[in-house]
Amino acid sequence: MTELANIGVVGMAVMGKNLALNIESRGYTVAIFNRSASKVEQVMKDHAEKKLVPSYSPEEFVNSLEKPRRIIMMVKAGAGTDETIQTLLPFLDKGDVLIDGGNTFFEDTMRRNAELDNSGINFIGMGVSGGELGALHGPSMMPGGQKEAYDLVAPILDQISAKADEDGEPCVTYIGPNGAGHYVKMVHNGIEYGDMQLIAESYDVMREMLGMSVEEIAAVFAEWSKGELKSYLIDITAEILTRKDDEGSDDPIVDKILDAAGNKGTGKWSSQNALELGVPQSLITESVYARYISALKDERVAASKVLPKPAGGKVELDKEVVIEMIRKALYFSKIMSYAQGFEQMRVASEHYDWDLNFGDLAKIWRNGCIIRATFLQNITEAYNKDAKLQNLLLDDYFLNITKEYQESVRDLVGLAVKAGVPVPGLSAAIAYFDSYRSAVLPANLIQAQRDYFGAHTYKRVDKEGTFHYTWYDEA
Amino acid sequence: MTELANIGVVGMAVMGKNLALNIESRGYTVAIFNRSASKVEQVMKDHAEKKLVPSYSPEEFVNSLEKPRRIIMMVKAGAGTDETIQTLLPFLDKGDVLIDGGNTFFEDTMRRNAELDNSGINFIGMGVSGGELGALHGPSMMPGGQKEAYDLVAPILDQISAKADEDGEPCVTYIGPNGAGHYVKMVHNGIEYGDMQLIAESYDVMREMLGMSVEEIAAVFAEWSKGELKSYLIDITAEILTRKDDEGSDDPIVDKILDAAGNKGTGKWSSQNALELGVPQSLITESVYARYISALKDERVAASKVLPKPAGGKVELDKEVVIEMIRKALYFSKIMSYAQGFEQMRVASEHYDWDLNFGDLAKIWRNGCIIRATFLQNITEAYNKDAKLQNLLLDDYFLNITKEYQESVRDLVGLAVKAGVPVPGLSAAIAYFDSYRSAVLPANLIQAQRDYFGAHTYKRVDKEGTFHYTWYDEA
Repeated sequence: MTELANIGVVGMAVMGKNLALNIESRGYTVAIFNRSASKVEQVMKDHAEKKLVPSYSPEEFVNSLEKPRRIIMMVKAGAGTDETIQTLLPFLDKGDVLIDGGNTFFEDTMRRNAELDNSGINFIGMGVSGGELGALHGPSMMPGGQKEAYDLVAPILDQISAKADEDGEPCVTYIGPNGAGHYVKMVHNGIEYGDMQLIAESYDVMREMLGMSVEEIAAVFAEWSKGELKSYLIDITAEILTRKDDEGSDDPIVDKILDAAGNKGTGKWSSQNALELGVPQSLITESVYARYISALKDERVAASKVLPKPAGGKVELDKEVVIEMIRKALYFSKIMSYAQGFEQMRVASEHYDWDLNFGDLAKIWRNGCIIRATFLQNITEAYNKDAKLQNLLLDDYFLNITKEYQESVRDLVGLAVKAGVPVPGLSAAIAYFDSYRSAVLPANLIQAQRDYFGAHTYKRVDKEGTFHYTWYDEA
Repeated sequence: MTELANIGVVGMAVMGKNLALNIESRGYTVAIFNRSASKVEQVMKDHAEKKLVPSYSPEEFVNSLEKPRRIIMMVKAGAGTDETIQTLLPFLDKGDVLIDGGNTFFEDTMRRNAELDNSGINFIGMGVSGGELGALHGPSMMPGGQKEAYDLVAPILDQISAKADEDGEPCVTYIGPNGAGHYVKMVHNGIEYGDMQLIAESYDVMREMLGMSVEEIAAVFAEWSKGELKSYLIDITAEILTRKDDEGSDDPIVDKILDAAGNKGTGKWSSQNALELGVPQSLITESVYARYISALKDERVAASKVLPKPAGGKVELDKEVVIEMIRKALYFSKIMSYAQGFEQMRVASEHYDWDLNFGDLAKIWRNGCIIRATFLQNITEAYNKDAKLQNLLLDDYFLNITKEYQESVRDLVGLAVKAGVPVPGLSAAIAYFDSYRSAVLPANLIQAQRDYFGAHTYKRVDKEGTFHYTWYDEA
């Protein structure tokens, strides 16, 4: 055996391979391992000149690493992760650091962190966002686990991460104990669902209500990305809409793609957890449901033939006026979605005792990840001004946007609902805003009903205590 | 020991006591037991003349029953249920029937049914709806478990249940194996959340948008309950709104009740399960979130002082016109909510292999339970016409309502959003309707984005297969 490798990567599918190449490109020697040897052989063949150390057994892999060992697992989340841990465990020593870079459910990470901690093995659950290209050139990373273990890998993570355009800071930081990293990645993905749904609704309104062509809409998104909406998802939307069919027709490719959205479950987890923690997180949830209903393609086609269309016809307003209305509504709704997502993380931080730093979270999402956007700098600044900010909407920047833009989202929702274009995301955004800014909601009536039929009691506005009303003769 | 009791009830809190009294009133001898003896003593003292057999130990209780024993547990769901089972189990014989009438999570019922089945004990998880009065005079009951065990208790359940006004049929039937009964009760409760939220929003628009007094609104609900909206929840709403403060003021009691809604978790479970099964169930979920946001009272009061109000003023339309618009919007939205709830049960029936009979479910909800309504007869008839109905919206009755009422909900959502009155439920209803009746949704753009950043592939509208587009140079 010659020189020991600085770090190891298990799992040579595209994410693992690209992360290994990214690390190697920063001057490190990287040991690589995969359950089936052929993938390791292929990587070695394609990158013969790189400082990669191939291994063909877990023992060989672990022994090829300098101590304390640093191992990043990029394997299929779930049973695959547990299997990989079990194959490596017999050869690991106390103080080694195992990192799970998969899309793992945070409760699994909490369990694994606790179990391995008993054997003295450090376990970091790390969310990695940025897709294949991000893994290769610089992802945003959200590592959670033992702080002292994080310190052992921090120099490498800093180097391989994306850097913020604003100040060159790395898009990685210590998130918190046990499952904090994967939790934050889960909410990141939920927010991603929300962003995508809002973009899809904006596209749909332009198409269905304004009768615009795909090319025209592409130009609008390209224009929007020069302003406050500047973001990766708006950029790729503009680009996607310019692309032609790759199977022979002259149509835009988007018109050839079936409108049945899939999902990998992280949006669902995010919503289920919000429900569990008691956090109103309607925007992400509506985005998940929108994907579910899109998947019922055959049922929708059948229903479209019998269910009535609205009477409302084309919009009478000037096209440019409506486009600007859509832009403002999209930005306003995006703010609501992030306000809900950060609220969810705030409640989770207390519930799981993670002590999350919300300014840091916004900072490391400024580049590398799928939701990267100029907008994240505004959130960073909001938390810089007030680390204990109760809700993003209360920050001056966001407050002013809501003042300027609220009429646009109100008008747009009214127009779209009248025209029959489904806008579940935009509708949830304004409903959340109006609920949150309402000192009084009709939940007093709900409490009265609950006390009526179930004797669930209620509180009063004018005195302390718990009350029950004698609605009827209870004898 | 004298005569053996026909059936036993464990748990002498109000629900258990009332159910025991209900059974006794049909001519049965009922053994009663409670963990703390004082409750049993109190019931015996209050009802000395009844055929109740008190027991002060689990052994005495079990031995006081004729075989095969029939025992209904009305104890706090969760650990309390497991504890009760464990105290009774040593004295039970094969073939005995244990019934859990609590608000139990259906997965717990599935587990308990399987565990007890191994010991030859039949276990029925039974949803009971109707509150305290329902338990005493006739609830709606949803029992799931071994069919042969159900047959042993069916005569008693038939007698103590509510009866439908339409045809006198009992509001109880066999639901399906293991957790089916508690599952259906969970969805019933979710639907109840939706009904209550829609009523609350209707009240809120009358109050905030039309400036109506509580008394005026009470009269509107009373009027509505003479028509197609006739239901228990509308009835009690009308009654609640006529009631005055019981702590001295002349104000309506509803104005003294704090607008922070509680919940017992069944709505949350219902939404979490819909997310798990991939069913779009936005209306119940928005109702759960509306309760959560209502609970943030202090935060809302603070936010109301800084977040901007909409510019829109009073509605110019005639009050009576808007009230009728609200009535139609409420009924339309209620249909969407039930369509989603029944869709959830349809998917669950396949997923858990329960073979649910949806017409039967509608039938047993016609009376006794919290969501009882004339409307349930329409659902019963829809499934009588077509037991395999894909979605309630496709039934002629509901189809015609959507034709006649869709403009009202569109107009009302537009007005409320413009006026700043939060209508998350009504908005979710029209968004669901417009999504479900859309042959084409913008999910093609979402699939393109997913393929762009994550190579998740997509299907095409014009040919079979799975495709990936070369969005950028992947080398």
